[in-house]
Amino acid sequence: MEECGTIFIKKQGARQVKYVIIGSGSIGMLLSSYLAQQTNSLLLATHRNIQANQIEQKGLHLVHTDKITKVQHVRTSSCSALLKNNLTDIETIDVMIIAVKSHQVKQVLEDLKGIEHKVASILFLQNGMGHTEMFHDISIPEVAVGVVEHGAMRTNDWTVYHTGVGRLRWSYVQAGKKVIETAFSPLRLNEFPILQEKNWIPLLHSKLIVNACVNPLTALLMVKNGQLLENKYYLNMMSQVFDEACTVLETSEKDQMWEYVRDVCQKTSSNSSSMLLDFEKKRKTEIDSILGYLLRQAANKKIHAPIIAYLHDAIKGKEVEFREGEVES
Amino acid sequence: MEECGTIFIKKQGARQVKYVIIGSGSIGMLLSSYLAQQTNSLLLATHRNIQANQIEQKGLHLVHTDKITKVQHVRTSSCSALLKNNLTDIETIDVMIIAVKSHQVKQVLEDLKGIEHKVASILFLQNGMGHTEMFHDISIPEVAVGVVEHGAMRTNDWTVYHTGVGRLRWSYVQAGKKVIETAFSPLRLNEFPILQEKNWIPLLHSKLIVNACVNPLTALLMVKNGQLLENKYYLNMMSQVFDEACTVLETSEKDQMWEYVRDVCQKTSSNSSSMLLDFEKKRKTEIDSILGYLLRQAANKKIHAPIIAYLHDAIKGKEVEFREGEVES
Repeated sequence: MEECGTIFIKKQGARQVKYVIIGSGSIGMLLSSYLAQQTNSLLLATHRNIQANQIEQKGLHLVHTDKITKVQHVRTSSCSALLKNNLTDIETIDVMIIAVKSHQVKQVLEDLKGIEHKVASILFLQNGMGHTEMFHDISIPEVAVGVVEHGAMRTNDWTVYHTGVGRLRWSYVQAGKKVIETAFSPLRLNEFPILQEKNWIPLLHSKLIVNACVNPLTALLMVKNGQLLENKYYLNMMSQVFDEACTVLETSEKDQMWEYVRDVCQKTSSNSSSMLLDFEKKRKTEIDSILGYLLRQAANKKIHAPIIAYLHDAIKGKEVEFREGEVES
Repeated sequence: MEECGTIFIKKQGARQVKYVIIGSGSIGMLLSSYLAQQTNSLLLATHRNIQANQIEQKGLHLVHTDKITKVQHVRTSSCSALLKNNLTDIETIDVMIIAVKSHQVKQVLEDLKGIEHKVASILFLQNGMGHTEMFHDISIPEVAVGVVEHGAMRTNDWTVYHTGVGRLRWSYVQAGKKVIETAFSPLRLNEFPILQEKNWIPLLHSKLIVNACVNPLTALLMVKNGQLLENKYYLNMMSQVFDEACTVLETSEKDQMWEYVRDVCQKTSSNSSSMLLDFEKKRKTEIDSILGYLLRQAANKKIHAPIIAYLHDAIKGKEVEFREGEVES
């Protein structure tokens, strides 16, 4: 299973786009489930060997509106086998999709150095914008970013629930030979619509603002997303984060953006944010890529963002607590 | 037991100072335990009838350094019997000590109207400074405030643990006939030292700043007091509250005050703050008298205090959640 040289099924008629998805959390699994329905050249790279084995043995299970689909054509590999061993017999990858958490991107990019020349294009799907600060160091000619608006929940190593249909919106940072556009255009995935946007910065900014408004507060206050709208004090707290984030990012059309933030809260009102889930599992959050990114931008632009700094300290402090807990146990 | 006219034992030799303590939480019980060792004219007024009955039947139990003292001479009454019934046969009260939570002071003062003329002096022992905003409405000629630096824990209706020896520091707001000074001067309570201070405002300010720094953050972050020193992010959060509080209160000798805050945190490092306990029991906190007071002062003085306002929203929001929980249950 870790012999990556044999991962792609030989050509049968029309040439298949070769996808590699790095990261097998809920988003990596969801994306693999849908893309594999249109290609038989997809490899899902997992962090843990055991998950790769499980998916290989049982198949990847997608649950959506009470229907279970056992998805064919998903090959697996552990990330380490794929990225670190610098396999000489690996075929060229058309589209590599990075679906790991933002704080794992740095390591992935380092590991990727060895096979970069075999990768035609790369698409990043992180929360926040911390990963965009590393783009200068990538030598792959085609780079894109995307935001996933779906609800997904991974229930075990081989099963993912599609809990809410949204869109995958993506945009080029540098278009290269437009391999991604060519790959995505013919796809017909009714329950997983893919939409190309013109400009990557506003695309990421809007998601960043939502993440900045919703994630840290829901984690700190231990509430579902909808509570930020229903509780007038929490709404006030959120609106102050929003104001500072818009100032830092020099957001135009602020009223429209505030509507968008409220709308996302409303539509996901009974959801726990990813950062709240991280808190519940006492694990590292994506705070560095969300509020941390905003604070670095604020420092560059000499903008004062006291509330964001305060909230950032609260989340970083909790992470320190979690780490201390680990040492003790 | 609710016949308050008979609560004071008849004179036997020297005249006894007649104390009434309103509020039978940990502080009210602790104070009663020690004062009753020097007088047999002490009445403890409880919120609940059942607690008054329990203390009457079992005696008030004080636990200190593994020694249990069953305190004699503590009479009880429910607050409602004492304050609301406007008893005509009640004797004059020398010192009335208000040991209820800050948000209960308003109600006590309203109920007190009926017997105010029988009260020679009144001493307030609240956290924060919200209660000081009601002083203009009191017609009792002698008014004082105090801060309790002891550790105390009420384990049941008739038992209080003295978990840490500190001091009761108090000061006159208006000195009247100095009944309190005359009452306290001869007391010899080694484990409950009572210290008179010259100026009431700095006395309350120093306690207010400690409460503002420690209570809301420990509640929100759900940590013991010591964590605010040990976790560098939390320490940073606390120092920002401190800075704003000092600005609002126009505190001189800020360095010395910061030392005091850190010292209190250190000495109570393994304690849960009263606000954290309120959170754990999902009950109303003293936020209005602590950060709320600071915000009202800030508004009067046109001072910007964004961090205090933010933290205030977080605690108020939690209180709303608790109240909603009550309705549901």
